[in-house]
Amino acid sequence: MSINEKSYAFGAAKSSIREIAAYGAARKAEIGAENVFDFSIGNPSVPAPESVRAAIERCAQLPPTELHGYTPAAGLPQARKAVADSLNRRFSTSYGLEDLYLTCGAAASISITLHALVNPGDEVIVIAPYFPEYRVWIETAGATCVEVMADPETFQIDTAAVAAAITPATKAIIVDSPNNPVGSVYSAQNLADLAQVLTTRGEEIGHPIYLVSDEPYREITYGVEVPWVPAAYERTIVCYSYSKSLSLPGERIGWVLVPNTNPDHDELMFAVAGAGRKLGFVCAPALFQRVLAECVDEPTDIDAYARNREALTRGLSELGYEYIEPQGAFYLWVKALEPDAEAFFRKAKAFEILPVPSDSFGCGGWVRLGYCVSYDTIVNSMPAWKKLMEQYR
Amino acid sequence: MSINEKSYAFGAAKSSIREIAAYGAARKAEIGAENVFDFSIGNPSVPAPESVRAAIERCAQLPPTELHGYTPAAGLPQARKAVADSLNRRFSTSYGLEDLYLTCGAAASISITLHALVNPGDEVIVIAPYFPEYRVWIETAGATCVEVMADPETFQIDTAAVAAAITPATKAIIVDSPNNPVGSVYSAQNLADLAQVLTTRGEEIGHPIYLVSDEPYREITYGVEVPWVPAAYERTIVCYSYSKSLSLPGERIGWVLVPNTNPDHDELMFAVAGAGRKLGFVCAPALFQRVLAECVDEPTDIDAYARNREALTRGLSELGYEYIEPQGAFYLWVKALEPDAEAFFRKAKAFEILPVPSDSFGCGGWVRLGYCVSYDTIVNSMPAWKKLMEQYR
Repeated sequence: MSINEKSYAFGAAKSSIREIAAYGAARKAEIGAENVFDFSIGNPSVPAPESVRAAIERCAQLPPTELHGYTPAAGLPQARKAVADSLNRRFSTSYGLEDLYLTCGAAASISITLHALVNPGDEVIVIAPYFPEYRVWIETAGATCVEVMADPETFQIDTAAVAAAITPATKAIIVDSPNNPVGSVYSAQNLADLAQVLTTRGEEIGHPIYLVSDEPYREITYGVEVPWVPAAYERTIVCYSYSKSLSLPGERIGWVLVPNTNPDHDELMFAVAGAGRKLGFVCAPALFQRVLAECVDEPTDIDAYARNREALTRGLSELGYEYIEPQGAFYLWVKALEPDAEAFFRKAKAFEILPVPSDSFGCGGWVRLGYCVSYDTIVNSMPAWKKLMEQYR
Repeated sequence: MSINEKSYAFGAAKSSIREIAAYGAARKAEIGAENVFDFSIGNPSVPAPESVRAAIERCAQLPPTELHGYTPAAGLPQARKAVADSLNRRFSTSYGLEDLYLTCGAAASISITLHALVNPGDEVIVIAPYFPEYRVWIETAGATCVEVMADPETFQIDTAAVAAAITPATKAIIVDSPNNPVGSVYSAQNLADLAQVLTTRGEEIGHPIYLVSDEPYREITYGVEVPWVPAAYERTIVCYSYSKSLSLPGERIGWVLVPNTNPDHDELMFAVAGAGRKLGFVCAPALFQRVLAECVDEPTDIDAYARNREALTRGLSELGYEYIEPQGAFYLWVKALEPDAEAFFRKAKAFEILPVPSDSFGCGGWVRLGYCVSYDTIVNSMPAWKKLMEQYR
């Protein structure tokens, strides 16, 4: 093949999550939506708040050349200022608009941040199980993806294992809390331990290790607090998206924050802007930059997710399934009923249940259920889960 | 520096066009907008059509989870079908939605296409003078940017020079017509000659040479027809954006077309999708995919640009400036009054005139004037142009 083989392979293979979701959509068309229990994709089932619609309608009244024109590459000053002010109120920080670079969503934020940081041959650590696109973006930036398993009991970061995985080539670690796919939230103590490891090992290898904090699920928690990561470790870069918190995944709007407390702030901000330029991101979508400026403090409606979580965990628990109690996000990490998660997935599929096997996330033996679905899907799936369990008895 | 030096450099240097535009904005704040004649950036001065506003307002009434949800990576089927149908009506083609991949604008389209095509060590030819970000995206994809000067009289493609520049490493050539920065439109004969060269030389080097046709200015012409490039050369990939034709540069919406007549269609479509995924583009902004589906056949209002073009060329002509008569786009390519375009730029700047020196576009001795400005800017700039000319007498 004379074209780029990796691009071809990434396009031909698709992400396994998207592939299952596509199967689910086709299957629904075939046998009726109510007969397919599709837990594959993280497409929020909670509608965007009414204030988003109102903001869109207000924006539509602006002069079109003003509304739809190019914005600065980093984003409209008023949108960045609104984000900085909101963060400052919530986390007692003193960020300014010059610390923010608006992006086309979290995928862009992470891809850009990795291209800002890494050089060919560098290593980037991920905590397994992990969002599978991390590996794609890390390798595209020219680095090697190094998997470190989370603590198998608590699914907190195994900081001793991280310390052992760091080599002179380690440039960064990606942390997401609340975690996709497990739903765990890393405690303040866990992050403090990680910071200690990164600082000590960074000194030993002679260059800083950056912490990329991927936080699209920050607002979706069930009674636990998500510590502000830059407060624990100063060389943090935060990647955020409004895909989940404002239910705007298709609109591609998010940001990269290089906190003003990061000792390498200025060069990192330049590198982030340069990476965005290099990859062909000109600016974040202009209309949604304005929507963001108006809706940044809109609370996330998590009641539906909390209700789904309750119904799903209670139902599966009664049937004898084992899972990790999720503290945040909208995923349930369920133990497969046999060691081979793919085989378990195929059996579930025969009952029209569509989870994502854990192999996609870098470890075997589990499946991820996205419960950002209708409540009815959860309730109506229970007989199928029962039959699946019976098949293993 | 332990972070990525190229990303840092691209961010710290900025694009020269954006840098001049930023100076222009600051200078306007200082001495009044009416006293600065900023011809630097291609931000359309013609408002988006009223139908865009109407489409946004209609979309805002859709259920939010439907409106703002993830779309397929290639885009909503109805948006892709609308684009394909429109192309088929205009160019007597038979494209389908499976030939299109919607993107976050032309920059994304070209970046994605290059990452789909090239391998490290490949060469990509550009026709100088050329849009400077081509080099950035070509080098980011791991290839070398090879400049071939346009015919110095006609600014058509010098096909003999292209033939001579092709080596076994040549993977692609980028062509944009109407051309930025000169405004020339390549004739059917010129494209046929180019196709002949690419076919013959491709056979000689033993692998195909792809033609990347970058067409954001297709709709903006002054009495000439823009030939449909895939009809001239079958291994064409078309990159389009609605930034100029619908005046939506900030919204980041465009597409990549792999025509179904391209012999490598299937593998190219996979590679395009894979490249989009690799770089962190999840989907094009969802709301504007829907707007596009409704507004794809909206005619581009070029009257204002035609009027500006007339006023600018007549005014400069009367003052004794030389320029290339633009057939399309909204740029005028004006001969600097001294061989050093940067020195000429500095003298123009002293009279508050802000063109872009031609060195940014890969050749010396000229400046580019974007006449996508208000008519008054053009008229009011004439005394300044006069003083500038007098300085050289």
